[in-house]
Amino acid sequence: MDPRAKLQPAARVAHRRQDVWTIVNEAAAASPKQPIVNMGQGFFGYNPPQFIINAAKEALDKVECNQYSPTRGRPRLKKAIADAYTPLWGRQLNPDTEITVTTGANEGMLSAFMAFIEKDDEVIIFEPFFDQYISNIEMPGGKVVYVPLHPPPNGATQNTSAGEWTIDFAELEAAISPKTKMIVLNTPHNPVGKVFSKEELLKIGELCVKNNIIILSDEVYDRLYYVPFTRIATLSPEVERLTLTVGSAGKNFYATGWRVGWLIGPPNLIQYVAAAHTRICYSSVSPLQEAAAVGFEQADANNFWETAIQEMKGKVDMFNEIWAELDLPFSDPEGGYFVLVNMKKVKVPADYPFPDHVKDRPRDFKLSWFLIQEVGVAAIPPTEFYTDANAHIGEDWLRFAVCKEDDVLVRAKERLRDLKKYIEH
Amino acid sequence: MDPRAKLQPAARVAHRRQDVWTIVNEAAAASPKQPIVNMGQGFFGYNPPQFIINAAKEALDKVECNQYSPTRGRPRLKKAIADAYTPLWGRQLNPDTEITVTTGANEGMLSAFMAFIEKDDEVIIFEPFFDQYISNIEMPGGKVVYVPLHPPPNGATQNTSAGEWTIDFAELEAAISPKTKMIVLNTPHNPVGKVFSKEELLKIGELCVKNNIIILSDEVYDRLYYVPFTRIATLSPEVERLTLTVGSAGKNFYATGWRVGWLIGPPNLIQYVAAAHTRICYSSVSPLQEAAAVGFEQADANNFWETAIQEMKGKVDMFNEIWAELDLPFSDPEGGYFVLVNMKKVKVPADYPFPDHVKDRPRDFKLSWFLIQEVGVAAIPPTEFYTDANAHIGEDWLRFAVCKEDDVLVRAKERLRDLKKYIEH
Ligand SMILES: Cc1ncc(COP(=O)(O)O)c(C=O)c1O
Ligand SMILES: Cc1ncc(COP(=O)(O)O)c(C=O)c1O
Repeated sequence: MDPRAKLQPAARVAHRRQDVWTIVNEAAAASPKQPIVNMGQGFFGYNPPQFIINAAKEALDKVECNQYSPTRGRPRLKKAIADAYTPLWGRQLNPDTEITVTTGANEGMLSAFMAFIEKDDEVIIFEPFFDQYISNIEMPGGKVVYVPLHPPPNGATQNTSAGEWTIDFAELEAAISPKTKMIVLNTPHNPVGKVFSKEELLKIGELCVKNNIIILSDEVYDRLYYVPFTRIATLSPEVERLTLTVGSAGKNFYATGWRVGWLIGPPNLIQYVAAAHTRICYSSVSPLQEAAAVGFEQADANNFWETAIQEMKGKVDMFNEIWAELDLPFSDPEGGYFVLVNMKKVKVPADYPFPDHVKDRPRDFKLSWFLIQEVGVAAIPPTEFYTDANAHIGEDWLRFAVCKEDDVLVRAKERLRDLKKYIEH
Repeated sequence: MDPRAKLQPAARVAHRRQDVWTIVNEAAAASPKQPIVNMGQGFFGYNPPQFIINAAKEALDKVECNQYSPTRGRPRLKKAIADAYTPLWGRQLNPDTEITVTTGANEGMLSAFMAFIEKDDEVIIFEPFFDQYISNIEMPGGKVVYVPLHPPPNGATQNTSAGEWTIDFAELEAAISPKTKMIVLNTPHNPVGKVFSKEELLKIGELCVKNNIIILSDEVYDRLYYVPFTRIATLSPEVERLTLTVGSAGKNFYATGWRVGWLIGPPNLIQYVAAAHTRICYSSVSPLQEAAAVGFEQADANNFWETAIQEMKGKVDMFNEIWAELDLPFSDPEGGYFVLVNMKKVKVPADYPFPDHVKDRPRDFKLSWFLIQEVGVAAIPPTEFYTDANAHIGEDWLRFAVCKEDDVLVRAKERLRDLKKYIEH
């Protein structure tokens, strides 16, 4: 045996295709159009509100806030979450049995998969998907089963609503097998911006109840919706007993770097998520949990949730004005802070020089590269969030994150005007 | 099929034996001797130094410090770690290829196992062990192979040094198989307090080089040693190419709740640890990484490392005075902040009423329970850190964490005097 063979990585980390974040960030850094306007990754271009920053600073002065949190989370945060979600659930939530705090929503979802997935169990996810789902399902040995969201048929020719991305329920039902253990929902959806309607959620819930499928509802953008927002856990007791709802202080409070998330669900599910979390991270960051607790406690007094919606919807609308000028159709988000724009009409010169790691990827990777080089705006190619079989659905779209300062969005619009000469009419 | 069967947890989280932390903390909360002096878990009873708290507060004012960190860690922290460890390694460390930041040492070690362990790969660990190793090795499907540390033969009758806990190298060699992929070292050791000698490390290193075994050296207590401390990575280039060294800002800077850790190692190993970490947590807490960077940058100017050793050694010695009074032998730690005390001479009344979850555990669980009830001091029974087969080695000892304020240690000593009437001479 080659002695080096023993230093080889496990299959789960060995694959080497460059991920989209590296491609886009490196291209952005090397672009001739500096400073680049980066609307790629979904981090905020501004700080959490001052009352939450202040709370974090106060926590840093307290001994117990700097030491290990209980593995399920600091009591104050669990209570604050229970109090904040009790009115939305329509019943009193128990902070000690129905809530567990995690290291961001990401590790929270991994904890849920680690808690319930054994080798060859199946998990249904919709395409396009948040990319971390895949590795997180595969880590405990699960098999991902994909169901596409169908884009509006006229999405390449006119503006549409993110709500027009639809589920084919026959496809969903066909994807269910005796091995289906979980389904992952994401509403408001990244990257589509869709808020699943109550009718859609009722149908999904019904299928899950019929087949006893655990619903992992990724609701990290739950405070940013521009149409009525339904939480699947609140549809009925039958659905609720199957549902784990995932939240993120990073997304709620503009602090993606704080790594505080949580799951809400029935005690007999939450206890195992908490057990998995304990094994993965032991406990989550203590002082910022305390700050997130204050965020929830004081959100209403600061009119924070309403302001958040107004400000983000303002950014969405202000940014999207550019597409009429360019005559490019976009998908208007119903929630969250991502905008999908259809670039079918953008003609990239036939001889345009793409590097190898872009050349072999679908058209959206080339569009992303082209925009970074020619106009100096970075956006994410959504086929990264598709299987190869369904990548064609996403290959004409680009995803723009609008969670940036208004002046950045204004600059992006100016830059994007340079695209005009490449657009066919 | 019972429809509820589909809601059952995965085997990795299903086992239900109460863990030692829950047992001890719940017993402490319910003890008649309030307030209890809790020397159980190894969190600090005091704050990080003020210059590091200040740095955390400053980071909270910066937009980029509140948003996602790069997955491998904030550049400032990686550089600060490289600069701090370069003199100890005796060569320039590369912050971008040889260091990766994780969510505490705990998730760092899980990332290392996820990076290299496939189903049925074997990992050697010494007993007693830090309890998280087991689940972290088993999560990717690894098999734990145990090698005991042998306590000093006279440990029950006289004071000994933690250095007298020894490896039987024939046992270690016999534990190696063609499937051995990794070995976990922990120096300074929890709970034993042993600092592995250079001679011991040379022998371990030699076996690993011969068999191409990756060394995961858990050095979270690396700044607290009271005898010369050798880092195995620095023994030779042959050993270094196999070694991943784990560190913890929580332990270094008295901030166990901050969840910032790191691994140092050769690029061809570190890259896969980083890939696993990305899948587990995506990235680690951003503002506290920045504060940890300042901790390293300014440690020397604040004479912090030296003060840390002096203060902790002072606590160890001050607390251990009590054992002479009680005529109980202890194992004097060479590093870290845990003291093992031999309680063979403590006679628990034959009819003492233990609850069910304690009654069936080894004698040290009963001793721990008894101390909590009768004297009001909480300590950890170390057989939690042994396999059943070797639990007898630990059953007369208790582990006390001395990382507490001096007045707490003084109170603990006062309380422990009440033990006198139960001690045989
Ligand atoms: C749909 C979705 N889920 C989860 C996450 C991760 O959230 P967190 O930063 O709290 O881990 C993201 C982040 O982009 C996301 O878009
Ligand atoms: C030996 C050992 N390794 C690792 C850890 C975990 O360190 P962290 O808090 O940085 O995850 C501990 C904590 O007690 C420990 O004792």
